[in-house]
Amino acid sequence: MFSAPKQLKNIATLIDVAVQDLLAQERNTWSAVNPALDVPLAELNDFVMRGGKRIRPAYCHWGWVTANGDPDLNAPEPLAGGCALELLHAFALIHDDVMDGSATRRSAPAVWASYIERHQHASWRGEPRRFGEAAAVLIGDIALVIADRTLGDVPAVARRVWDALRTELNMGQYLDVIGTAQGAVAVEDARAITRYKTALYTIVRPLQLGAALAGNADLAAALAAHGLPLGMAFQLRDDLLGAFGDPQQTGKPVGEDLREGKPTVLLALAREEASQSQKGVLAKAGTDVTDSEVAAMQQVLVETGAAASTETEINRFLASALTALDSLPNVHGNRDALSALAHYVVNRET
Amino acid sequence: MFSAPKQLKNIATLIDVAVQDLLAQERNTWSAVNPALDVPLAELNDFVMRGGKRIRPAYCHWGWVTANGDPDLNAPEPLAGGCALELLHAFALIHDDVMDGSATRRSAPAVWASYIERHQHASWRGEPRRFGEAAAVLIGDIALVIADRTLGDVPAVARRVWDALRTELNMGQYLDVIGTAQGAVAVEDARAITRYKTALYTIVRPLQLGAALAGNADLAAALAAHGLPLGMAFQLRDDLLGAFGDPQQTGKPVGEDLREGKPTVLLALAREEASQSQKGVLAKAGTDVTDSEVAAMQQVLVETGAAASTETEINRFLASALTALDSLPNVHGNRDALSALAHYVVNRET
Repeated sequence: MFSAPKQLKNIATLIDVAVQDLLAQERNTWSAVNPALDVPLAELNDFVMRGGKRIRPAYCHWGWVTANGDPDLNAPEPLAGGCALELLHAFALIHDDVMDGSATRRSAPAVWASYIERHQHASWRGEPRRFGEAAAVLIGDIALVIADRTLGDVPAVARRVWDALRTELNMGQYLDVIGTAQGAVAVEDARAITRYKTALYTIVRPLQLGAALAGNADLAAALAAHGLPLGMAFQLRDDLLGAFGDPQQTGKPVGEDLREGKPTVLLALAREEASQSQKGVLAKAGTDVTDSEVAAMQQVLVETGAAASTETEINRFLASALTALDSLPNVHGNRDALSALAHYVVNRET
Repeated sequence: MFSAPKQLKNIATLIDVAVQDLLAQERNTWSAVNPALDVPLAELNDFVMRGGKRIRPAYCHWGWVTANGDPDLNAPEPLAGGCALELLHAFALIHDDVMDGSATRRSAPAVWASYIERHQHASWRGEPRRFGEAAAVLIGDIALVIADRTLGDVPAVARRVWDALRTELNMGQYLDVIGTAQGAVAVEDARAITRYKTALYTIVRPLQLGAALAGNADLAAALAAHGLPLGMAFQLRDDLLGAFGDPQQTGKPVGEDLREGKPTVLLALAREEASQSQKGVLAKAGTDVTDSEVAAMQQVLVETGAAASTETEINRFLASALTALDSLPNVHGNRDALSALAHYVVNRET
């Protein structure tokens, strides 16, 4: 229904080329030290190339343009910032799959699962799971360090944004892990996780990073006024996809969030409105659930009105984000581009 | 026998205060966002304070002094560099314990093990091991990001050194994990791991970082001429302690490296010289070994001459490192201080 806007596709193409180039350089350097070091870098390259919408690089680009940066898509600063954001995202996802025990990502085995296969295939010693997780932790660590090096020598204001983004990501992730273990979080706590793990990380900070790369820190508040509600809407869409999404489109098993017991706002809303028996159905989230139990949970999300009120909330957040665009300087079609991106990110099906 | 030189103790005291101060600030900031976020930062603080010789900060200080930086131990640049190195080291150790499945570090439960206890104590849901590892991976990630932020806005030459150090650490660690899984590595491969994971990481790069913080990149080669052999000797001492060290002193089970099957130069040397039956004893390394099997392996390390030739090599490396001191500019007693540190790091018992 909502396909990605052309500008996003163009940015994605340039990011793909740039990330592959920089990882090819790393592979040259490190395979000369030891041929075994080509493997983790090739794995990282394949992981990044296997998919991803490159939303964060797009926001970095438009933050840059809004701050009067060169609108050329090949402008080196936001392109480097975009590559750094994608590599950081690879770090986050690779570690996330270890933490969640998710065996599938982007319709392929998660990095830890692919290393378990290597271990078994080579009949290596030690526990396959420990080995797979160790390799995935390290490949994530490598991605984080390369991300940071890719950002490079940037103005101090840009480094402050990058620092905030990385810290918030990890703190949000920590709350997410704790919330998952606790089995039930209040709506407000789920919103806090959404704010740190997604809204700031995916939209606000990439926009501010772009502006800061152009040396501008004054736009930070106006960009946040657009990015924060949009980021909340983005995650609420993710919550709906994680509960109801088509595995063909999302590349993940149906109802993955419910299987894992993710502390989503959607689930917290449903829990608030649930009857005693519906609460019992939802309490299965995060345990070893069957497909029919997933279907029953989906039904509760619908029957309690949580799914519908999440759709309503998405629209309200979107409207608020679009209104905030009026406060941004109007440069090189930035408002139209951000509006098109906003509609895409809240209406996507993957 | 060889206690730490007074200068190292003084640097360690200042680093302890500075790291605690900066983590206290993080705790203030993040516990205001959500009280649950005090826990991982407190855990990180306790981990850093539980021990560690602060060798890397000392090398950063002396690299700085050698490059004509202010010799005051309170000079902010090398102190920040030292804190960054210690926090990075915490990241490395916390992740390392997950990768190795080591339950004990610095005479206390490893971070992942302590989070398993929390999980069981609170009767949380999900697999305790997955939760413990997830929390430890995240606390490591947080330490890495804080380390990087602590380094702060430094000259580009200093960031290059820091970038190299972080990348080499992870690459060395990757080779270590692969080598452990393969069960046997050649002496030359074990030396490569030692070079990246220890010699560059622990001595060469901290020295060069200090010099680079003083804006000096020209001393890099002369500092490496001292640091590289010394770093090799440092790891060979670690190999001996990992095989023969006193658990009371090392804070780890006796023969931990043998139990884990670490791809050390010591083990590789023994394997090269071992008879068929001795090879059989060594092949137990990295499997589920008993205390008497550890004792038998220790005996093979001695009988093959690997332990003695490692001691000889340590002395040769030390001599080479000390000779290289003559090529350094003589500033504020740096040569004497580096000489005392060198004797300490290769003769330590913990």
